[in-house]
Amino acid sequence: MTEREPWMTDPLYNPATGTPKEQLPTPALVVDVEVMEANLATMARFFENGPTRLRPHFKTHKCPILAQKQVQVGAIGLTCAKLSEAEVLAQAGIQSILIANEIVTPLKIARLAELSKQRQMIVAVDDAENIRLISQIAQEAGATVNLLVEVNVGLRRCGVQPGEPALVLARQITRLPGVHFSGLLGYEGHTVLIPDLPTRQVNVQQAMGELVRTADRIRQEGIAVEIVSAGGTGTYFLTGSFPGVTEVEAGSYLFMDTRYQQLGLPFRNSLSLVATVISVRGPSRAILDAGMKVLTTDNGLPEVISPPGVTLVALHEEHGILEVDATRVQLHLGDLVELLPSHVCTTVNLHDRYYALRNGHLEDIWPISGRGKSQ
Amino acid sequence: MTEREPWMTDPLYNPATGTPKEQLPTPALVVDVEVMEANLATMARFFENGPTRLRPHFKTHKCPILAQKQVQVGAIGLTCAKLSEAEVLAQAGIQSILIANEIVTPLKIARLAELSKQRQMIVAVDDAENIRLISQIAQEAGATVNLLVEVNVGLRRCGVQPGEPALVLARQITRLPGVHFSGLLGYEGHTVLIPDLPTRQVNVQQAMGELVRTADRIRQEGIAVEIVSAGGTGTYFLTGSFPGVTEVEAGSYLFMDTRYQQLGLPFRNSLSLVATVISVRGPSRAILDAGMKVLTTDNGLPEVISPPGVTLVALHEEHGILEVDATRVQLHLGDLVELLPSHVCTTVNLHDRYYALRNGHLEDIWPISGRGKSQ
Repeated sequence: MTEREPWMTDPLYNPATGTPKEQLPTPALVVDVEVMEANLATMARFFENGPTRLRPHFKTHKCPILAQKQVQVGAIGLTCAKLSEAEVLAQAGIQSILIANEIVTPLKIARLAELSKQRQMIVAVDDAENIRLISQIAQEAGATVNLLVEVNVGLRRCGVQPGEPALVLARQITRLPGVHFSGLLGYEGHTVLIPDLPTRQVNVQQAMGELVRTADRIRQEGIAVEIVSAGGTGTYFLTGSFPGVTEVEAGSYLFMDTRYQQLGLPFRNSLSLVATVISVRGPSRAILDAGMKVLTTDNGLPEVISPPGVTLVALHEEHGILEVDATRVQLHLGDLVELLPSHVCTTVNLHDRYYALRNGHLEDIWPISGRGKSQ
Repeated sequence: MTEREPWMTDPLYNPATGTPKEQLPTPALVVDVEVMEANLATMARFFENGPTRLRPHFKTHKCPILAQKQVQVGAIGLTCAKLSEAEVLAQAGIQSILIANEIVTPLKIARLAELSKQRQMIVAVDDAENIRLISQIAQEAGATVNLLVEVNVGLRRCGVQPGEPALVLARQITRLPGVHFSGLLGYEGHTVLIPDLPTRQVNVQQAMGELVRTADRIRQEGIAVEIVSAGGTGTYFLTGSFPGVTEVEAGSYLFMDTRYQQLGLPFRNSLSLVATVISVRGPSRAILDAGMKVLTTDNGLPEVISPPGVTLVALHEEHGILEVDATRVQLHLGDLVELLPSHVCTTVNLHDRYYALRNGHLEDIWPISGRGKSQ
């Protein structure tokens, strides 16, 4: 982003370095940089000796600065969900970009082919006609697009069935110009949030077993399978140590949220939403300046981190409704309330910037350039 | 907005005038301009002879072009929820702006005071200390800020109780410099979605009765009450014809959604989300390129408008999961599916632009400049 809307430079919404948390404009999406850096390092250490590598998912943080930090500590590139996100990553200098999704319309495929001349672009496919179209458009553009055959490993979303159906597409790709068969994609999204670890493990092993056996089946035909991509934050240590998986797509580990914190992972919450009390309606009820336009509820209500004794009981469109335990705390107009998002990815997508804090003071503002890049 | 991110001018995401709906980049938030204009005219006609006037809520469409259209057909100004939205409206040339919310922090109040020198700014208050702070900061800035005392008419969010508590604040305002007492704000949000019309009517009458009696009580003290503001799309004809209410804040009427269409109002759905089938998993299941980052679920799942025989059964983060009645329709890769949002306001807040279509062809692209302006 070279050009910015005036709003992105307005000092009211972009305060100076050193500004204390208490003086941020709210609602403010805040990163505790020290905790985030610890999460970054913990995940990097898990993957530093290979053979499996980390290709973190951009859809969580949508922030080029964070993508660059992930690459600096060992990520082999980034994963993303949409073409328009991939363009943000390309602009940020990321060299290898996996779009873990199908791109099916001619105009978008043409853009993908152009991007492939500047960056290593890898995209998911699960359909023979789609593969033919990508081949044709890429060839006409003088580009080569790398393809991963997406395999349904139990999530029942995109992807062909394991085994023969995947082999058929792999074979087709190797015979066409303008496309290169890079391997398989198989996201075990149905397992990543299973609370019970042994159950999660069994499910991951079953899903990854199908994926890796499919890769082996394709290799038996003399076709190289360079990439076997899978995994999320809830399964990174299982999928990431499963023989045959080459890269893992975890994203939420940098920030965490109320869902992921229940999984016993070695990451801590580093992202919060700081809001202001704009109305006090007696000792046990207060209203926040933060509603459904800054916090999402698809995984339930966010939780109040501080002050203690305060509970978020409802989110309206522009307001949060607080219940206050008057025996423990008294809220005043202008007081800050800090909340933990219930779903980090959908929450981040509502915001234009992170306020990056160290020791409670503003260190930097990071544009969320991928926000809204859903096309 | 004079400066734009490159993404806002990229022809892939901003196709030429005349482009048919079928060739828009998806997910695309689409306005049927003819239906929207009919809604605009229907609401304008209701208010054209007064005495109650329309001050539509910006939080729904967040689009300066639509705000200007509303003023052109008789709106006396705009309502909004946040200071940063008010700044977008001021920049768009809107002369009278009501922030139907409390602004409590000194930095935001200072900005509000500055805005008050260029535009008629009206803001809600429900606290004596907040009133003192606005008075002090506005006076120092050489500005006058217009205040509405917010009254709790049953929603139990912000606002003091009707009667004496509102009178106390009104009296305080008239005695302070830098602030002007303009009247009362009382949003009957607890009534706007009551399906049964007689029940809705009784509840509105009770709420507006309290508000108007409070205005009369204040007038008995010799204090002028110029504004009595209330109302939403579900109650505009009840609140808008209630004697003593001077202006109505309806916003959703331009677009409607699955909630509002159940209320028997004279407005039609003009907003939809156009998505593309990116994966076909057998005759009865297909996957869309539209998930929770382009559609919200706080009022349940959006509904499929077309093609018939297709049902949205789940929204994932980046995907919509479709169930297809194979006896009625067959979906192919690249097919368009059009959906009706379940909550227009939170949905619009996810998007950067409207694709404005007339007769199925692109007429214009309208930036949603208020998107994300939650501070």
